[in-house]
Amino acid sequence: MAGALLFSSRLDDPEAWSKALKSEMPELDVRISPELGNPADIETALVWKAPPGELASLPNLKLITNLGAGVDPILADATIPPHIPVARLGDEVMAQMMAQFVTFAVLRHHRDIARYVRQQRLSRWEYVLPRACYDCPVGIMGIGLLGGAAARMLAGIGFPVAGWGRSPRTIDGVETFHGADGLAPFLARTEILVCLLPLTPDTRYIVNRDVLYQLPRGAKLVNCGRGGTVDEAALLAALQDGQIAEATLDVFETEPLPPDHPFWAMDQVLVLPHTASIAVPEIAARDVVANIHRLRAGETLLNIVDRARGY
Amino acid sequence: MAGALLFSSRLDDPEAWSKALKSEMPELDVRISPELGNPADIETALVWKAPPGELASLPNLKLITNLGAGVDPILADATIPPHIPVARLGDEVMAQMMAQFVTFAVLRHHRDIARYVRQQRLSRWEYVLPRACYDCPVGIMGIGLLGGAAARMLAGIGFPVAGWGRSPRTIDGVETFHGADGLAPFLARTEILVCLLPLTPDTRYIVNRDVLYQLPRGAKLVNCGRGGTVDEAALLAALQDGQIAEATLDVFETEPLPPDHPFWAMDQVLVLPHTASIAVPEIAARDVVANIHRLRAGETLLNIVDRARGY
Repeated sequence: MAGALLFSSRLDDPEAWSKALKSEMPELDVRISPELGNPADIETALVWKAPPGELASLPNLKLITNLGAGVDPILADATIPPHIPVARLGDEVMAQMMAQFVTFAVLRHHRDIARYVRQQRLSRWEYVLPRACYDCPVGIMGIGLLGGAAARMLAGIGFPVAGWGRSPRTIDGVETFHGADGLAPFLARTEILVCLLPLTPDTRYIVNRDVLYQLPRGAKLVNCGRGGTVDEAALLAALQDGQIAEATLDVFETEPLPPDHPFWAMDQVLVLPHTASIAVPEIAARDVVANIHRLRAGETLLNIVDRARGY
Repeated sequence: MAGALLFSSRLDDPEAWSKALKSEMPELDVRISPELGNPADIETALVWKAPPGELASLPNLKLITNLGAGVDPILADATIPPHIPVARLGDEVMAQMMAQFVTFAVLRHHRDIARYVRQQRLSRWEYVLPRACYDCPVGIMGIGLLGGAAARMLAGIGFPVAGWGRSPRTIDGVETFHGADGLAPFLARTEILVCLLPLTPDTRYIVNRDVLYQLPRGAKLVNCGRGGTVDEAALLAALQDGQIAEATLDVFETEPLPPDHPFWAMDQVLVLPHTASIAVPEIAARDVVANIHRLRAGETLLNIVDRARGY
């Protein structure tokens, strides 16, 4: 039967997605990879890192939707025919979940919780006067849907927040910088740097040794965008040197992070398994189904990725 | 010289307070305990747990200001003449700092960070689908200046928040309960319980076994009010039993927490040394000095504690 949707992810819950999609569109024929049935039936695909070649094997595929905001795995897969439009998911709940994760990480660094955890291991009660947040400037690289939500949330709870992006953008209550010229002043005023950039040829290793050392000494880093935007060897050296005091890392150049990677054993690094934010099925299914209707009606598709730009 | 202020705290920074007070009132004579000079000179005292008898030794003392919101140490000190008015500090920055601490603790519990920390110790990458915050009801006991700020901040970033207090109160975006009758329904809907009550005869051990077991199984507890409001033996048993899955404790029945206390060694408990919020000198000095001017002008004093009520 034509018009089927292929669901292909090893991380997301196929049952929850099937249920959410059918609640929006009861007649939708949902196939769960690797049980494709007749490949010619499949019209749309909802995927997170589909096995290479899987999407290329679908002769009638007309739309690929990425199960998340970062589409770098799809754009990096040369087996996927480039004429098929790629949409990315990104809704208010995903943005709120990311903003909350960033808020958690920033508050944890600001309130020096890692120090208290070390003291707890020694049964040591050692009071340190806490600092008010107005002395702790936070900087967010990448201020689109997710980074913009994080910037607004942190500014809303009282932090001085600046954002940096490729092109000019204004956000109420947030100081914004842009482009190559804007990077140095942005870094110089930032004590906690949050990286939420998409991974593109322009942003690979954008947080390199030079950038890390333009932050004030003892700055802290949160990466919950893409592992490839940070040069991990440079970060490791900066952490060992004390230039970067602490890091919260949710994403890595290689995921899962290999068991022998030095980050695992570092007291000053919090390692998380790429869990900052997700597309919640019961929310995001609406956008998936809306695009199926648009596709069939010949209308403009929503949230389509610009392959040249990379996001 | 009459009109001096005595500063008496072993936790707060006398230099920072002296500077902040003099910046508001350059002529103020600030004495730092234990260097009182002539006790008859002292008109006002700014104290956190002053040594017993110290305040009673000041014949011309007309106002005691507590270096924080919780005045239970002053009211418990029988050597302090009860006719001397007691003011408590509590300003927007103190409230914001407390609200941020609560936000940190709630997000940490909601996002199950303790699980990831345990996994990190084992170099284990184990992804668990994160839950959206709309499924995680937070309940705050004590919704005055500090608890109210925490409730508003958590509701502002997206959590379903309820508050419970002694008397009826309304807060935009927060469901409120009050009194003995309101406690059971408040607890039944609460997955993360935050305790921000003042310590009074009415609130001592208010969070007892019965209250802990009225929460849903696996609930989490944050106490950043006063240690004495929670029955620690009951909490310890509830943690060992799994009724309470995790706790963030910033305050304890005995502070510093004794080195042999079982909380120190519990993986599911984060122990902090009473650091959630403070009166920041450069902000709070304004309120201290405003009351000195009011005292001298015979005007009504601000933030005076009701000794009968206990806060």
